[in-house]
Amino acid sequence: MENENKMRDLIIIGAGPAGLGASIYASRYKLDHLVFGAEIGGQVVEASEIENWAGEKSISGEDLMKKFQDQAEGLGAKIIQSNIGNVSKLEEGFEVTTGEGKKYKCKAVILALGMKPRRMNVIGEKELIGKGVSYCATCDAMFFRGKDVVVVGGGDAAAMAATHLSEFANKVYLSYREGGTNWNPAREDELKQNKKIELLENTELKEIKGSGNVNGIVYEQNGEKKELSVQGVFIEIGSVPGVVIAKQLGVELDEQHYIKVDQTQATNIDGIFAAGDVTTASNKFRQIITAVAEGAVAAGSVYKKLKLKK
Amino acid sequence: MENENKMRDLIIIGAGPAGLGASIYASRYKLDHLVFGAEIGGQVVEASEIENWAGEKSISGEDLMKKFQDQAEGLGAKIIQSNIGNVSKLEEGFEVTTGEGKKYKCKAVILALGMKPRRMNVIGEKELIGKGVSYCATCDAMFFRGKDVVVVGGGDAAAMAATHLSEFANKVYLSYREGGTNWNPAREDELKQNKKIELLENTELKEIKGSGNVNGIVYEQNGEKKELSVQGVFIEIGSVPGVVIAKQLGVELDEQHYIKVDQTQATNIDGIFAAGDVTTASNKFRQIITAVAEGAVAAGSVYKKLKLKK
Repeated sequence: MENENKMRDLIIIGAGPAGLGASIYASRYKLDHLVFGAEIGGQVVEASEIENWAGEKSISGEDLMKKFQDQAEGLGAKIIQSNIGNVSKLEEGFEVTTGEGKKYKCKAVILALGMKPRRMNVIGEKELIGKGVSYCATCDAMFFRGKDVVVVGGGDAAAMAATHLSEFANKVYLSYREGGTNWNPAREDELKQNKKIELLENTELKEIKGSGNVNGIVYEQNGEKKELSVQGVFIEIGSVPGVVIAKQLGVELDEQHYIKVDQTQATNIDGIFAAGDVTTASNKFRQIITAVAEGAVAAGSVYKKLKLKK
Repeated sequence: MENENKMRDLIIIGAGPAGLGASIYASRYKLDHLVFGAEIGGQVVEASEIENWAGEKSISGEDLMKKFQDQAEGLGAKIIQSNIGNVSKLEEGFEVTTGEGKKYKCKAVILALGMKPRRMNVIGEKELIGKGVSYCATCDAMFFRGKDVVVVGGGDAAAMAATHLSEFANKVYLSYREGGTNWNPAREDELKQNKKIELLENTELKEIKGSGNVNGIVYEQNGEKKELSVQGVFIEIGSVPGVVIAKQLGVELDEQHYIKVDQTQATNIDGIFAAGDVTTASNKFRQIITAVAEGAVAAGSVYKKLKLKK
């Protein structure tokens, strides 16, 4: 059991690319730190194939994050799989409380909170989560072997989900709104060459049907209402920043609810830094590479802050 | 031979982490581009050991840059080892002229120019470059097997150079000014535990001596002038941004001569972007990870710019 009275240099909340990147640099700076994450690797573990991480021609998100974790731990990081319930300001430093109620003290915090999937908010969605409705194709594709599924969304994540699902499912519909695609051109070719994938252009999902399990959807296409029999609905319409803890602390957000940071990755609250997809940094490019870089910069800033304080 | 009349989407100048990172993303965006670099891998190839690149516990700079290059080329990049003499603005787009006088046209440029070693500007330095005076321990250490050398500098690069040289040299002096150290604490332990390394605190290099080859230095320590017999002098006092091309173009620099960029990595000149150590981005953290991230963001910005223009 960790010593709960110890004042650590740093606690990193989030164990995705930003959190692990921050930890790697924190270790190099000999900052006494802990990393907490609900899921080690964050959202990246859901990616079946990554081709834009420099140095890895093709690697699964899970494997890449395992490499990050191994390296962070090899450099001495303690990574704890746990939710964080609350962060509060002490007279000096901060107190971080886990979901299980354990408390830790630290001089600085890096919020590497990442993103969480955006919901459609259509009829039947909430009720059928885990019963055919999924937000993670990589996690759940294997359960739809030989079945018909629909992917909803027009971005890279939707395109990748459809391609990945086509390896398992009998048929993959890819449904997106009018003018609603912004996937990488490289993805478009993949989709068109894949015979299992059928594009449903100009559609709007209206309802997910099923009692017990998903058995179909109702959608509108060019003003016409249609039904489709599917056993799976994969919602891939992006993510929203996971800023609950940041809001509690009074960290300033932008109008889209991303944490505002400066060039040092500092927030408006002294001692609270942020890194990765949850922030306004890197022009909101939100790639693994930018998240890790922001984590590294944040760790460097914590080091400078604590070193100058001594 | 490349078609010199073709208007390409993008030319990336520099083939270090920023340039290769930009290329990887440019390829994913299907941007027709070329990469030019005087040295593939940039300054990183000089690093004997890298432990802070996420996913690689320990790798040489040369090996890591080879991986980047392989991946960039695997994704379709054409990387040309060549200096760039000049970039000039055309009515539409830019013309890039290589050191050999070949000309290429493009719609956008990413300047990933990196840094070059800073000189001491002491007596004998210039004359003895390559004759015992070096700015790259990784490149030249092997030539000093069994000899006595001095490393000048107080940062991480100096500490790493001393450690690396100790694997070859008989004796390594590490000379730095009063209050002149800012190396990573992890480095300090390595230095103190290494019996071949002797720290020369509070010293100032005054002269490098030798006719034909280096045979000693003159330095001041605590106000006293001293001489030391060495066969090698490794100058590791940092780098300065390589901004010759940027200046020709009229790209705006900050007071330390770094290229000013905004969050999209755009410079003040429309169509000219910059990434990596040469820029003011990432809080000037100047690590491989931040350079690659900036390259990726710059490529994304070029893609958005050209796509929106169509």
